[in-house]
Amino acid sequence: MSIAFGYNGDMTVPFPVVGLAGKVRSGEIWGEIEAVAQWLTQRGFSVVIESSSANAAGASPMPWPAAPFPRLADMVDVAIVLGGDGTMLHAAQQLVEADVPLIGVNLGRVGFLTDIPRAQAFSQLAAILSGEYLEERRSLLTGQLVRSGQIMVEHHALNDIVLNKGPRGQMIEFALTIDNRFVYAQRSDGIIFSTPTGSTAYALSANGPIVHPQVPGIVLVPLCPHTLTARPITVPDTSVIELALYPGFVADLYFDGHERLEMLPGDALVIRRANQQARFLHPRDYDYFAMLREKLHWSASPR
Amino acid sequence: MSIAFGYNGDMTVPFPVVGLAGKVRSGEIWGEIEAVAQWLTQRGFSVVIESSSANAAGASPMPWPAAPFPRLADMVDVAIVLGGDGTMLHAAQQLVEADVPLIGVNLGRVGFLTDIPRAQAFSQLAAILSGEYLEERRSLLTGQLVRSGQIMVEHHALNDIVLNKGPRGQMIEFALTIDNRFVYAQRSDGIIFSTPTGSTAYALSANGPIVHPQVPGIVLVPLCPHTLTARPITVPDTSVIELALYPGFVADLYFDGHERLEMLPGDALVIRRANQQARFLHPRDYDYFAMLREKLHWSASPR
Amino acid sequence: MSIAFGYNGDMTVPFPVVGLAGKVRSGEIWGEIEAVAQWLTQRGFSVVIESSSANAAGASPMPWPAAPFPRLADMVDVAIVLGGDGTMLHAAQQLVEADVPLIGVNLGRVGFLTDIPRAQAFSQLAAILSGEYLEERRSLLTGQLVRSGQIMVEHHALNDIVLNKGPRGQMIEFALTIDNRFVYAQRSDGIIFSTPTGSTAYALSANGPIVHPQVPGIVLVPLCPHTLTARPITVPDTSVIELALYPGFVADLYFDGHERLEMLPGDALVIRRANQQARFLHPRDYDYFAMLREKLHWSASPR
Amino acid sequence: MSIAFGYNGDMTVPFPVVGLAGKVRSGEIWGEIEAVAQWLTQRGFSVVIESSSANAAGASPMPWPAAPFPRLADMVDVAIVLGGDGTMLHAAQQLVEADVPLIGVNLGRVGFLTDIPRAQAFSQLAAILSGEYLEERRSLLTGQLVRSGQIMVEHHALNDIVLNKGPRGQMIEFALTIDNRFVYAQRSDGIIFSTPTGSTAYALSANGPIVHPQVPGIVLVPLCPHTLTARPITVPDTSVIELALYPGFVADLYFDGHERLEMLPGDALVIRRANQQARFLHPRDYDYFAMLREKLHWSASPR
Repeated sequence: MSIAFGYNGDMTVPFPVVGLAGKVRSGEIWGEIEAVAQWLTQRGFSVVIESSSANAAGASPMPWPAAPFPRLADMVDVAIVLGGDGTMLHAAQQLVEADVPLIGVNLGRVGFLTDIPRAQAFSQLAAILSGEYLEERRSLLTGQLVRSGQIMVEHHALNDIVLNKGPRGQMIEFALTIDNRFVYAQRSDGIIFSTPTGSTAYALSANGPIVHPQVPGIVLVPLCPHTLTARPITVPDTSVIELALYPGFVADLYFDGHERLEMLPGDALVIRRANQQARFLHPRDYDYFAMLREKLHWSASPR
Repeated sequence: MSIAFGYNGDMTVPFPVVGLAGKVRSGEIWGEIEAVAQWLTQRGFSVVIESSSANAAGASPMPWPAAPFPRLADMVDVAIVLGGDGTMLHAAQQLVEADVPLIGVNLGRVGFLTDIPRAQAFSQLAAILSGEYLEERRSLLTGQLVRSGQIMVEHHALNDIVLNKGPRGQMIEFALTIDNRFVYAQRSDGIIFSTPTGSTAYALSANGPIVHPQVPGIVLVPLCPHTLTARPITVPDTSVIELALYPGFVADLYFDGHERLEMLPGDALVIRRANQQARFLHPRDYDYFAMLREKLHWSASPR
Repeated sequence: MSIAFGYNGDMTVPFPVVGLAGKVRSGEIWGEIEAVAQWLTQRGFSVVIESSSANAAGASPMPWPAAPFPRLADMVDVAIVLGGDGTMLHAAQQLVEADVPLIGVNLGRVGFLTDIPRAQAFSQLAAILSGEYLEERRSLLTGQLVRSGQIMVEHHALNDIVLNKGPRGQMIEFALTIDNRFVYAQRSDGIIFSTPTGSTAYALSANGPIVHPQVPGIVLVPLCPHTLTARPITVPDTSVIELALYPGFVADLYFDGHERLEMLPGDALVIRRANQQARFLHPRDYDYFAMLREKLHWSASPR
Repeated sequence: MSIAFGYNGDMTVPFPVVGLAGKVRSGEIWGEIEAVAQWLTQRGFSVVIESSSANAAGASPMPWPAAPFPRLADMVDVAIVLGGDGTMLHAAQQLVEADVPLIGVNLGRVGFLTDIPRAQAFSQLAAILSGEYLEERRSLLTGQLVRSGQIMVEHHALNDIVLNKGPRGQMIEFALTIDNRFVYAQRSDGIIFSTPTGSTAYALSANGPIVHPQVPGIVLVPLCPHTLTARPITVPDTSVIELALYPGFVADLYFDGHERLEMLPGDALVIRRANQQARFLHPRDYDYFAMLREKLHWSASPR
């Protein structure tokens, strides 16, 4: 983090330099980003635009510097993400190492992670950037793909790491251990390892439980398990989970639904809580349960 | 706790005085209790028999003192419970205030809480009583029934506190708040508030998730909720949960399936983690996941 | 059925005499009933008001005859029910023996059974009463409570027959046979026997499947079964289902959620499809799936 | 069907010519096939071995003719299948057009479709082949993949037709109509269309209901649906179901878990009950519910 862009000198301003990132591959979003950037500039903030968002501006000259996420991470004090939860997931993964706090503005319906509706964007941003916010830290998972004892790849996930039957579409079989204790051998379509944050995402459609973000747990949700008594389990987030694919089976591995890796027979997957945490800045009146009510339509009943 | 019963002087013996309790209202269990008491006596332990178990001895004279749970709690260093999980639940509630550790011997199939099978009772007890054990602390809930601002009753539960539609069999309606935040108004047959320990008991039949005992959470599992998107939720075990029954509704309240109270319209129920924890002494090779596998038949598959 | 109330002679009018029934114990509904009765009278229909609805009129004189359901059943060619699904369930049970077709006008949100919204009541009624309708027949269940070989009571149910643990709140245990074949012994909170019509009512909150009304099946949905592999089963509607309560267990029995009977240890319950069917008259554009979509909010998604 | 292989002339023998098929790609099974073939020959039956099973015999000469399924179908009066349910599914698909009845002998644990255990094979086969059997007809589905108005492929399924997200692993979106009525647009991992027979196979792991084989229905079970109120639905087996994949989505299509087709954006899938039915010959004491109890471990309970 840095104030190298020259702020007006009032050192009590908590976030003098603001990063801006929008939904990737969405041309229409440029107008929104530009509006927020101008609004910030008028109020004395320095602004850095994430490069792929900046590209959406096209040929028109732009008064703000652009930087790809890794560089932007070192330049800004806070990042505002414009888009939906998918956009936020991507930004959080890119910025978590640098410990940059995130603010989410939703351009459509309010999301689980992007909790500021477009209509209230400026009033809420004004409050948060002046220091009126609720900071929340959310756990991430880290997953290592291990082949012949070597870590091939390591990725973070804010929502979930998902193992899914591969392109042949055949059920997979694997052994699972936790802290070196055998848990079960499972035949299924796959399994979801979810953070509490991810418990309201994909895991929820797979009949997983909702887990409050402040519960230090990792949720394991089997996908179409062969054994009918297989149930979702929440284990302590200090657990080291190891999954070994049985001979003859291949599987696809997803991190937050995007990064895809292929697991080969005999490959292992080691999952633990990441050292880093994502930092979200919410409006002062942020209410997790209010968001659940709204997103899950808890007032709606069929009878 | 006390060594007033006169132990042989070796102060390194961790549990000189042992309480013994069996399944209430089961005459056949006396033989088992007697066998364990004799075995303990021969090894130099002092023994106290829980009164209602002692009554099962009938008219025959008994060389061990008997005491009801409240008094036994102050006399013993450890309690051995012979029976199933129901027996253990009862004993744990009685002994938790005095912080007496518990050892469970199951006379039938191994239970979730009574993890020593009858056949291995003496070898395992010998090891545990000599100090070879794994101590595990389990959270309890405490629930207060509040009427017109007055706490009418307060009870503990090691498994769960269950609110269920009352004798008229009509759906109930209530409002739920957590830490003074409104969560939802629910129309349902009731709701289960479960500890991680209870997550493998009644909550599991109601489609609740399994929660590892070391996850500091409380699980809320709705019973036949009117709203189809109502899902089980795990909240931090520091939460203060308040449920208010709407006017016109009555409900039954159960603590660990036994203690039953009636909730009247307008009554509130306040649930939080109890200050006390139950202490279980397990054999050194105790394995939570092995027990899950066995109890849930995870090796069995329909196809 | 009869035209004894003197119709205008046009024998092609399909329903010259119309019964009217509203939500019981709802004083406010009288205005609605009166409006429909006047509208019918102006169009030349004879009108009979169901007695308990007529009582809602209070002291004011009323130009239409009133009759309790059993007598009304013999007087009318069709019955219009004003209220929600509960009101319709009650009316259907009363009128099914006499084979009176039913039209449902919902005064609140559209119901599964009361599919004409208040706002369109007159236009839809005009069409239906002139012969523009879709007739649908729905199966009912009949349940006999058998004690010591004697049929104590027999009731119909359009939605469901529910066996539920009794006032002591303890799990029940029973044996189930279908067509004299043993199916299972179950320990649970109870079991729902549902028609396809009832599959979108209580059975749905207990995780039962939706069954289209034209599928000739009976759905068995266990309530919190002890055995985790117990699943909802649909059996042919020609099945004769017998449930015998094990010694030591009592249970409550509900027909469409209202009629309540007590089952004692050793009692049996025999369930089969009723000989009669309920007849519903829908507007021509009636669409079962459209109604499901609306009632179950299928357009709503959490993510 | 034919008796061209020369039977002994006793026309009351119901199945003079018997086909034999075993698990494909299993060399070890040849011994079993040979034993059954010899046993049949000794009892005067003509025997035809399915070609791929015959190949398992290797170089050794074989006294029985071999024929691939299409030709075998015209030669035999009944087919005995040795293997598991997968082997039976394959054989049933191959023989359904020719209306050949099937007998299933399970070499491992008893299956849902292969209900004769190895140990009782000869006594049960003797009884069935002498006319002591229970014949059961099971429905199949037929699915057509339609592209630009052209039927590209048509396949049968005895268990299920499954649409699953394709190799990119991204959620799919499609519109579903039944008898030309729009049912819903769904975002999910896919959907299972299951016969009652298939309701105890893959659909069961996806939380689908069990449907008795004599219920004339088709079960739709969504896979991880985005909308939480999406539930399994059973529709009449006279329904014509059409699924249209939305632009931008590809999916994989499976028939009984084996045949795989690729659906492209804009492709449609039309599903209806097949004209043919599979014919299974069971021992006289065949009991569907007994099999469910055994396969689903209904006697096993966790508490």
